Amino acid sequence: MSLLPKIEYEAANPAVREVYDDIRATRKNDYINDIWKVLANDPALLKRSWEQTKTVMSAGAIDALTKEFIYLAVSITNNCEYCVNSHTAAARMKGMSDAQFGELLSVVGLANQMNRLAVGTQTAVDARIRALAHP
Amino acid sequence: MSLLPKIEYEAANPAVREVYDDIRATRKNDYINDIWKVLANDPALLKRSWEQTKTVMSAGAIDALTKEFIYLAVSITNNCEYCVNSHTAAARMKGMSDAQFGELLSVVGLANQMNRLAVGTQTAVDARIRALAHP
Amino acid sequence: MSLLPKIEYEAANPAVREVYDDIRATRKNDYINDIWKVLANDPALLKRSWEQTKTVMSAGAIDALTKEFIYLAVSITNNCEYCVNSHTAAARMKGMSDAQFGELLSVVGLANQMNRLAVGTQTAVDARIRALAHP
Amino acid sequence: MSLLPKIEYEAANPAVREVYDDIRATRKNDYINDIWKVLANDPALLKRSWEQTKTVMSAGAIDALTKEFIYLAVSITNNCEYCVNSHTAAARMKGMSDAQFGELLSVVGLANQMNRLAVGTQTAVDARIRALAHP
Amino acid sequence: MSLLPKIEYEAANPAVREVYDDIRATRKNDYINDIWKVLANDPALLKRSWEQTKTVMSAGAIDALTKEFIYLAVSITNNCEYCVNSHTAAARMKGMSDAQFGELLSVVGLANQMNRLAVGTQTAVDARIRALAHP
Amino acid sequence: MSLLPKIEYEAANPAVREVYDDIRATRKNDYINDIWKVLANDPALLKRSWEQTKTVMSAGAIDALTKEFIYLAVSITNNCEYCVNSHTAAARMKGMSDAQFGELLSVVGLANQMNRLAVGTQTAVDARIRALAHP
Repeated sequence: MSLLPKIEYEAANPAVREVYDDIRATRKNDYINDIWKVLANDPALLKRSWEQTKTVMSAGAIDALTKEFIYLAVSITNNCEYCVNSHTAAARMKGMSDAQFGELLSVVGLANQMNRLAVGTQTAVDARIRALAHP
Repeated sequence: MSLLPKIEYEAANPAVREVYDDIRATRKNDYINDIWKVLANDPALLKRSWEQTKTVMSAGAIDALTKEFIYLAVSITNNCEYCVNSHTAAARMKGMSDAQFGELLSVVGLANQMNRLAVGTQTAVDARIRALAHP
Repeated sequence: MSLLPKIEYEAANPAVREVYDDIRATRKNDYINDIWKVLANDPALLKRSWEQTKTVMSAGAIDALTKEFIYLAVSITNNCEYCVNSHTAAARMKGMSDAQFGELLSVVGLANQMNRLAVGTQTAVDARIRALAHP
Repeated sequence: MSLLPKIEYEAANPAVREVYDDIRATRKNDYINDIWKVLANDPALLKRSWEQTKTVMSAGAIDALTKEFIYLAVSITNNCEYCVNSHTAAARMKGMSDAQFGELLSVVGLANQMNRLAVGTQTAVDARIRALAHP
Repeated sequence: MSLLPKIEYEAANPAVREVYDDIRATRKNDYINDIWKVLANDPALLKRSWEQTKTVMSAGAIDALTKEFIYLAVSITNNCEYCVNSHTAAARMKGMSDAQFGELLSVVGLANQMNRLAVGTQTAVDARIRALAHP
Repeated sequence: MSLLPKIEYEAANPAVREVYDDIRATRKNDYINDIWKVLANDPALLKRSWEQTKTVMSAGAIDALTKEFIYLAVSITNNCEYCVNSHTAAARMKGMSDAQFGELLSVVGLANQMNRLAVGTQTAVDARIRALAHP
C-alpha cells in the first residue's frame, strides 16, 4: 500500500487522463503501472516524470536496452525495490538474456566494490587519467 | 595523496610484479594507474581486485563499452571521484561519444529521481510487473 | 519482526520506563512506537536517541513541520521504510497537506537527479558560489 | 575542471542561449553558474534540468526557503560538494540564518542516525503508524 | 521470490556443485543459503563471490567476529535486508552478545550522523589529521 | 574552507570552552580538530555530538580499535573524506596495522559488492537465516 491512493483512469481529471493516454499509446499496451497512478496525486509531477521518462529512455545515441541496463545499475545501487523489479521487467521485455543479467550484476557488484576501495584508500586521480577523461 | 604509499614496480615484490605485468599485457600499455599501486600494499587484495576487474569488464554477453556505462552509472551514484574520472577515461577510449555521455547522464539523473519517488511514495511492486520480472 | 525483541512497559527496567514516560508526556499520547521498544534493549542507546530526537525535532529557529520535511527528505534518500512511514505520519499529524507532500517529493526527486548530474560531470564549485556560501 | 567543457554564452547555440536568457531573467542576475554551462553540452538535458529546477524550486504549497532546506538535506546525504555549496548559497540568499543552518544540520544528522538504527534492528512499521501515514 | 530461480543441488551442473560442496565443507553444515542458489544462475559469478567471501571473511590480522561487525556496518548503511539478516545471524553464531550488538548499532548510528555533519559543513581535513592518517 | 567559520578557543563562549576542555582532557592532548571548531557555531550541536562520540567510541563490550573499524567502514561506504581521514588517523593511533587496514578494506569492498548482488537479485531472506538472526 502506497502513501498516496492510486488514481484510476475513471476517477482521473483530464490532465491525468492525458498522461495515461500517452503512456498507453507509447507502450502500445493498456496497462498503467502503479507508480504513475500514485504520482497522479500531483498531476504536474506525474506529467513531468512521465515526459522525462519517455524522452530519456527512448533509443538515441544509446539504444533502449542499454539504457535499461544503466537504469538498473542505478536502481540496484540505490536499493529501490520497485525500480529493480520494474526495470528488470522492462529489460527482459527488451531482450535482456540471463547471461546479460548475470554480467550486469557482476559489473554492478565490481563497481560498488572498487568505488569503496578507491575511497577507502583516498587514492587521488592520476594526472594521466584526468587528462584522458577530459576532452 | 592516498592513505597508503604507492608501490612502484621497482620496489614491488614478485607477487605484485606479476599483477603489474598482467595489467600491462592486458592493456597493451605500460602505464599502471594509481589505484593498483595503492592496493599493492596488500598483494592478495591487489590480485583479487585486478583479476576480477579483468574478467568482469571484458566483452561477453554485454560488450565492453556498455560495461563501462554500467560501471560509470554506479560510480556516479556512489559519488566516487576516482572511479568517475577513470571510467570516463576508459569509456572515451572505448569510443563513447559526447552524445552518448549526455544520454548516460540523463538516464542516471532520471533513475536517481524516480528511485526516490518510488521510495517516497512507498509504492508496492505491481503483481503484473513482478510476474514480468520473474522468469 | 525485528532483530531484537520489543521491550514492553511492564517488562522494562526503571531506566527504560523513565524514557517511555517521557515519550508519553512529550507526545501527550500513550502509544510508544516500536523503534523505541526495540532500542530499549540497550537502555543507554534508547535514552540518547530519544533525548536527541526530542530536542532536535522540537520547534526552534525552524518550525516543527519543516523539520519533518527535512527528516523525510533524508529518510527517502536513504530508503528507510520505517522512517519514511513514521515521519510521513508525523508530518501529516503536524499539518502536511497533499499539495505539500507532492512538492516535497518533487524537490527530493529533483535534488537526487541534480546531485548526480553535478557528480557525473565533475563540475567544480564556482568561485562566486563558494564566496556566497561562506559567511 | 569538469569532464565536459563549459559552454559560454558567446559560443552557445540558440537553444542554449534561450535557456541562459531564462536563467538570467528568472534570477534577475547575469551570472550563469557552471553546472548549467557544463550541462549545455547536451542542450536537451540543459533545458529539461533548468525548467524542472525553475518549476519545482519556486514557492508553492511549500515556500522557497523551505524547499532549499529539503534540497540541502538531500545533497548533504548524497555528499554532493557542488550541490551543498550552491544550495547553501541559495539558502543564505533566501534568508537562512546561522541558527537555522545549525538546526538543519542537526535534523539531517539525527535522521541519518535514526535511519540506520531502524534498518540495523530491522524494525517493522507499526500497524498504527502505517495507518496514520496513509490517508 | 528472487529475480532468478534458485538452483538446487540436484539440478546444478558440476561447476555449481563444486562450489556448493565447498560451502558445505567450509561451514561444516549442509545448508546452502539462498543467495548462493540464486547466484548459481551464473556459475562464474557464484564461484568468484563465494571464493572471495571465504577468503576475505576468514580470520587473519582481524578476527572473524570483528569482520562480521565490519560487514554488518556496511550492510546497515547500504540498507540491505538480506545482508543485515544473514550477517546478524553469522555474528550471533560467532559469539556476538546483545551488548555488542547494541554498541555496534550505536557506532553505526554515530558514524552516519557525523559523516553528514562533516559533509554538511564542508569541513576540510586538518593538516595534522592528514599527517597522522598517512604513514 | 568550511561553510561556517572555525571558532577558536580564545573566541569561544563558556559553553563551547567547556566542551573543548573536555576534548582535551579526554584525549590527553591539546589539539582540537576542525570538525569541533566548526560545529561550535551551534554550541548545543557541538555538545551533543562530542558527548555522544565520547560515550559511544570508548571501550565497552566492543574494544576501542574495533569501534574505529566499524566507524571507518561506515565512513568509507558513505564516502566522507573528512571522516575517512580522521578515523584512519584514530585507528592508526590505537594500533591498526597495515595488514589490518588491508583486511578492513577487503571486507568493506566485499560487503558493498555482496549487498548489491542480494538487492540486484531480490533474494528474500531464508526462513532459516531469519530464525538464526532472531533471538
